Amino acid sequence: MNEAQAALYVETELDYFNDDAKLACEEIGDGNLNYIFRVVDEKSGDSLILKQAGPVARISDEFKVSPNRNKIESDILRLQYKYAPDYVPVVYNYDPIMNCFAMEDLSDYTIMRDALLDHRTFPLFADQITTFMVNTLLSTTDVIMDHKEKKELVKSFINPDLCEISEDLVYTEPFYDCPRNEVFEPTRAFIEEHIWNDDSLKLEVAKLKFEFMTNAEALIHGDLHTGSIFIKEDTLKVIDPEFAFYGPIGYDLGNVIANLIFAYVNGQFTIEDETEKSNYISYMKETIREVVDLFINKFDKVFDQEATEQVAKYDGFKAYYINKILQDSAAVAGLELCRRIIGLAQVKDVTSIADASKRTKAERICLLAAKAFILKREQYKSGDIYLATLEQYQKEILGE
Amino acid sequence: MNEAQAALYVETELDYFNDDAKLACEEIGDGNLNYIFRVVDEKSGDSLILKQAGPVARISDEFKVSPNRNKIESDILRLQYKYAPDYVPVVYNYDPIMNCFAMEDLSDYTIMRDALLDHRTFPLFADQITTFMVNTLLSTTDVIMDHKEKKELVKSFINPDLCEISEDLVYTEPFYDCPRNEVFEPTRAFIEEHIWNDDSLKLEVAKLKFEFMTNAEALIHGDLHTGSIFIKEDTLKVIDPEFAFYGPIGYDLGNVIANLIFAYVNGQFTIEDETEKSNYISYMKETIREVVDLFINKFDKVFDQEATEQVAKYDGFKAYYINKILQDSAAVAGLELCRRIIGLAQVKDVTSIADASKRTKAERICLLAAKAFILKREQYKSGDIYLATLEQYQKEILGE
Repeated sequence: MNEAQAALYVETELDYFNDDAKLACEEIGDGNLNYIFRVVDEKSGDSLILKQAGPVARISDEFKVSPNRNKIESDILRLQYKYAPDYVPVVYNYDPIMNCFAMEDLSDYTIMRDALLDHRTFPLFADQITTFMVNTLLSTTDVIMDHKEKKELVKSFINPDLCEISEDLVYTEPFYDCPRNEVFEPTRAFIEEHIWNDDSLKLEVAKLKFEFMTNAEALIHGDLHTGSIFIKEDTLKVIDPEFAFYGPIGYDLGNVIANLIFAYVNGQFTIEDETEKSNYISYMKETIREVVDLFINKFDKVFDQEATEQVAKYDGFKAYYINKILQDSAAVAGLELCRRIIGLAQVKDVTSIADASKRTKAERICLLAAKAFILKREQYKSGDIYLATLEQYQKEILGE
Repeated sequence: MNEAQAALYVETELDYFNDDAKLACEEIGDGNLNYIFRVVDEKSGDSLILKQAGPVARISDEFKVSPNRNKIESDILRLQYKYAPDYVPVVYNYDPIMNCFAMEDLSDYTIMRDALLDHRTFPLFADQITTFMVNTLLSTTDVIMDHKEKKELVKSFINPDLCEISEDLVYTEPFYDCPRNEVFEPTRAFIEEHIWNDDSLKLEVAKLKFEFMTNAEALIHGDLHTGSIFIKEDTLKVIDPEFAFYGPIGYDLGNVIANLIFAYVNGQFTIEDETEKSNYISYMKETIREVVDLFINKFDKVFDQEATEQVAKYDGFKAYYINKILQDSAAVAGLELCRRIIGLAQVKDVTSIADASKRTKAERICLLAAKAFILKREQYKSGDIYLATLEQYQKEILGE
């Protein structure tokens, strides 16, 4: 659809606006895969978003992705809304013919990555995102959900095309000199030495790839970076769950942690005013710490309150289960840091560091931390340990 | 269907027999879930088997199991036939209306459990069953199979009803005093002490239950005991794969090992002639050893020859992958030993030991070995180690 067709579609197919509405439409998408139309009634000011999936990814027609991802996305938004209504947009309809769905307009929100690039702070973020994660993830595990119902969800959310993208871009290509990578040349020799030539790292990545492909633990978002979060002062909405499938819980938590680290290094290398920098860095550290620690605390509480599976209540099981998730989270944080620096889909937090020397330092800090997160993943049981690693490699690279 | 209806069905619906065939039909099922009709043309001697699934299990109408298991079974027989044609019966048709399928008649074969109860030996068994397992299991993993194709198979073989039976009967009920258990009274106090009161064991069982529910590793048979194997002198056919789903590879290998151990203890406690006993015990030991060792060797070779996944070829990955499978196998062997002694579905190998004192000794040996297999599962990397455990507890219980 183009903008005019999208407006006409909304007018004729949806019963959302007043009969006398005067609709205007704008394509506002800047993601990798889809077209996003904002349709506004210029009379009342009411608005909605129409999201349409085409047969190839918007970023590159190398990626053929089934338009069925649009159904997966609207289905999972509805499901996540059930578990975390405060943090998920409302879906109004889904149209399997046009491969589109209409949802709540979030134009008064900002994409969190952009807000962080402006070094804005959101003191409630850690609390909000951990509630979103714990509620949507733990509720869909065999700990809480009826096992037959869970298996039907596993079936509904088998997502071969989008999983393939992650398997390639996250778990494979960044770990060798793949032509599709987008290495920043001043960092190339460092990547060769520390990543591509490290067989022990590659072995761990292979294990993690199989974990990603086989561990049907919970219905995960699958792409939970700061570009998938709409945020404003007092709340947030998690969007773009089209990568959703039954996978390891740590995949979501790890992505959040890694993308906060990107925001942290961006602050570290781009803020010139010392007070502003110090405030922002303190905020980012506190947020990283809280995301990990609040996740653990809330997970622990909801587990106690809601577990239905008898064997999950055996002594020691909950601790084992949480530890396994924290290990996966650390490893995925490491993978996300590597793939956003080495691989095809980069992040502005890093690419916008204009000074080449600063950018390569930022990249090196991230890559060394990434390796520690992957190779020593069993150690990352609290937010403090993440911060200690980050500070250690920052000192090392800055020669402080 | 009754016998007459089954004969009529075959005559009118299937194009298998000659037009002038004179069909006779007999219901020969003795399994827990289905009805099995053998239909013979009395003129030509040609025959086939018709297998029908009803809406409740034959063993007990407590188990409501979807007749869709019949589709799963015929689909997987066809798939396993593709990977291991020598060891899987031919399927002639599947009828979704009648919930039945027709397949090769294996009347010249014997159910392996019955043959072993007669203390017959099958020197080719270890070689044959390991070829069946390696070919059907490894071929359906992400090591070899295209990941998208694998995900479609995961979806097709989601099997909530039958998995629930295993989750309950294998992973839950045997580990507490569940009313549905069928404990042999002379062993009750031993079970209370060594199984039900062992919290470290129960914790490991909880971990294994989650492994069973979440690890979509390979398309497993799901019920590979000696009652699911038709055997004769020179070959065998694996039947009854209605429990098939994407689960841990070790579930199949572990079940084979446990059921050979049942045959071993049956020989140990029921054969009176010393020479016969010595020969049978030697054969069973050799078979247990070979099943483990040949599985490892063949798995290793097929992995080298057929792996397509790039990261599976990284240094050290194959060893990691096989070790994980061997750990799972040991644990499942332990679970199967426990559940067949404590739980609802017992095995004749044990229940047919008429002398109560001998039977409880056999049970104790199996239960102590089971605990070692579960608690020290990382040690069981060769057939010899299984035999050492078995001999150790046999000595202990027999006071030798």
